Amino acid sequence: MEKDLETLKTWKEHVQQELDRVMAFWMKHSHDREHGGFFTCLDQEGRVYDDLKYVWLQGRQVWMYCYLYRKFERFHLPELLDAAKAGGDFLLRHAQVAPPGKKCAFVLTRDGRPVKVQRTIFSECFYTMAMNELWRITGESQYQNLAVSMMEQLVYWVQKDPTGLGQPQYLGTPDAEPLAVPMMMLCLVEQFGESDEQMAAKYAELGDWCASRILNHVQRNGTAVLENVTEEGCELAGCLGRHQNPGHALEAGWFMLRYATRKGDPKLLDHVIDKFLLKPFLSGWDPDHEGLFYFKDVDGFCPTQLEWSMKLWWPHTEAMVAFLMGYCETGKQILLRHFCQIAKYTFHKFRDRAHGEWFGYLNREGKVALTIKGGPFKGCFHVPRCLAMCEEMLDALLSRLAPGYKS
Amino acid sequence: MEKDLETLKTWKEHVQQELDRVMAFWMKHSHDREHGGFFTCLDQEGRVYDDLKYVWLQGRQVWMYCYLYRKFERFHLPELLDAAKAGGDFLLRHAQVAPPGKKCAFVLTRDGRPVKVQRTIFSECFYTMAMNELWRITGESQYQNLAVSMMEQLVYWVQKDPTGLGQPQYLGTPDAEPLAVPMMMLCLVEQFGESDEQMAAKYAELGDWCASRILNHVQRNGTAVLENVTEEGCELAGCLGRHQNPGHALEAGWFMLRYATRKGDPKLLDHVIDKFLLKPFLSGWDPDHEGLFYFKDVDGFCPTQLEWSMKLWWPHTEAMVAFLMGYCETGKQILLRHFCQIAKYTFHKFRDRAHGEWFGYLNREGKVALTIKGGPFKGCFHVPRCLAMCEEMLDALLSRLAPGYKS
Repeated sequence: MEKDLETLKTWKEHVQQELDRVMAFWMKHSHDREHGGFFTCLDQEGRVYDDLKYVWLQGRQVWMYCYLYRKFERFHLPELLDAAKAGGDFLLRHAQVAPPGKKCAFVLTRDGRPVKVQRTIFSECFYTMAMNELWRITGESQYQNLAVSMMEQLVYWVQKDPTGLGQPQYLGTPDAEPLAVPMMMLCLVEQFGESDEQMAAKYAELGDWCASRILNHVQRNGTAVLENVTEEGCELAGCLGRHQNPGHALEAGWFMLRYATRKGDPKLLDHVIDKFLLKPFLSGWDPDHEGLFYFKDVDGFCPTQLEWSMKLWWPHTEAMVAFLMGYCETGKQILLRHFCQIAKYTFHKFRDRAHGEWFGYLNREGKVALTIKGGPFKGCFHVPRCLAMCEEMLDALLSRLAPGYKS
Repeated sequence: MEKDLETLKTWKEHVQQELDRVMAFWMKHSHDREHGGFFTCLDQEGRVYDDLKYVWLQGRQVWMYCYLYRKFERFHLPELLDAAKAGGDFLLRHAQVAPPGKKCAFVLTRDGRPVKVQRTIFSECFYTMAMNELWRITGESQYQNLAVSMMEQLVYWVQKDPTGLGQPQYLGTPDAEPLAVPMMMLCLVEQFGESDEQMAAKYAELGDWCASRILNHVQRNGTAVLENVTEEGCELAGCLGRHQNPGHALEAGWFMLRYATRKGDPKLLDHVIDKFLLKPFLSGWDPDHEGLFYFKDVDGFCPTQLEWSMKLWWPHTEAMVAFLMGYCETGKQILLRHFCQIAKYTFHKFRDRAHGEWFGYLNREGKVALTIKGGPFKGCFHVPRCLAMCEEMLDALLSRLAPGYKS
């Protein structure tokens, strides 16, 4: 117990200091003071190597700034508020490709002209998260109205008719549901429902639907989470069906932990810990070089993705959140041990001591493979979200276990 | 001179033996005797780990079988002819997504139902190559008619109007021409024109157009080949503009060597050797671990593609062909030395001594990263094409330099 307290205190200090360093990097290098929004293509030192604006990352950075502004006294800074609003307004002006149509671009030029559009829901999901958070910190109802109307469009695409996404269906196209879809929708349900009973009630049924869809991805007699299954929850043929993404399973895991906790369902909580935390961690962890594989094949074939054995930052941040949350909810020692194992590897391998922020992409052996700090898929999101959530959870644990502890 | 002859003889033996081993692998494991066409998702031992049929690879394998059947006495086998015809007929029945529309699928189910369609020209290019070769070995005019009508569609997409490909253009979409497009079109011009004066004349002007477009990719005062430039031959902004693909530059190099030779243009030949062979080889070769990088950024930024530093089999096979062809055409010692350097690395690192064929994907340090022998982008093509062409070129060199030499 005493040893656990020391562990928690040590990690509390680590994550708090690291959150400050990471946010300093983004605040220094990423603000586009001319057009609003954020540069995310930043090299090791923070230099802008491309000025394209990826909508996922614009929405995520707005969300992150608002979250910190709202929840952490030391981040309650006009600078964060202003940058978040400028980012939100950039999205509001430019994200939608053909307004009033709700489809958003995947990537925009620096001044907001669309470059590419993805035929998925994710740009729109991060737009929604950004707008809901902006409403929370500004109280301006236009942001919440935009969030709710985008959410309605998302629900329509996901539950009623996806044709508006433009994904063509052919005779041989498999009826595949990626885990990422119900996972992101559950994330949005949680986002809207936080301290908002009316919204929590409005999306309660949707939340149940997401949770049941996520649980469908537990396959092979409960031994494995598969990334793609049919809409009825059956395994798909070939590589697509056997594909595993341990980081997604773990991320879905902590959304499901929140869901089970909110429902007050300890049986579901145990199920989620076993299926979405322990099993993906055990099968996804590289026994030879440590770290979580990016992809696996459930039957042990070699995945066809060139990057399958690389170690990416975000599965590790999601694993940290998931195991610490599991420990908060259950007090099980094994979950704290796994948190420490993952956090140790992650802090040791991904942090850039020289220039701040984290490397995103290591090779299998744990050597930095890409020196970029941000790019088309890495921005100001997974690292600070993980650090902020861990800081909050560690604070809560410490005040529970050591009431005299001062953060 | 005597030493060069020994070198050429040694490599002649190596490539000939290796071609036999490689073809034995595909003939043993890849034929789908039920539906026609080929399994290309083969693991290290040749087991089928997915039965999807990628149209690029179906067309390429048909082409490869026909080429060997037509040019090598030891491959003039009924088994190759039958498999090539069955593969061609599979394409003929299933490749086009909505006949008579010419757009072909990217990937089909085992029995030929379309799964995905790419918004590029490459499925159609490999379909065309396959049909022209099938006509050459069977004499059946239906194949040549299909090849010619697909070629007309390709020329229309590339020179007149690409909207039929379905690639949407937005306000911020850059006017980018990938090197791969004029390179593939020049490959087709050469394909049709081989020993066919009528077709050579028909596509002569197109060949000139392709060559001039390819030369547009030489940028930075002649110091670098860039993968994407504007249609007017100007550099593009950002990562897209700075992107380099040494393997593509070298592959375009040997198409351009054939073009310059056919034109009898020694000045162009020298230009191509300098810009498309020597410079991409020198800047693309990894000084620390040998082998050709997959991607580079011309300004030395870290590329954003996770696989940028991996060593892929095909840039190495293309480099072998390019340098040996350059040596055949000019007799320059440096080109033979580079051929030997690349061939030595390639044979040492990519060949699978245990199960035949080659690994396709090594990490930067040269360790096998994916054990697959075939997948969505690797089939029976680059390895045997390289070995067959090298065998032919080495034979020609040896009969020229040592008239008494018997292959």
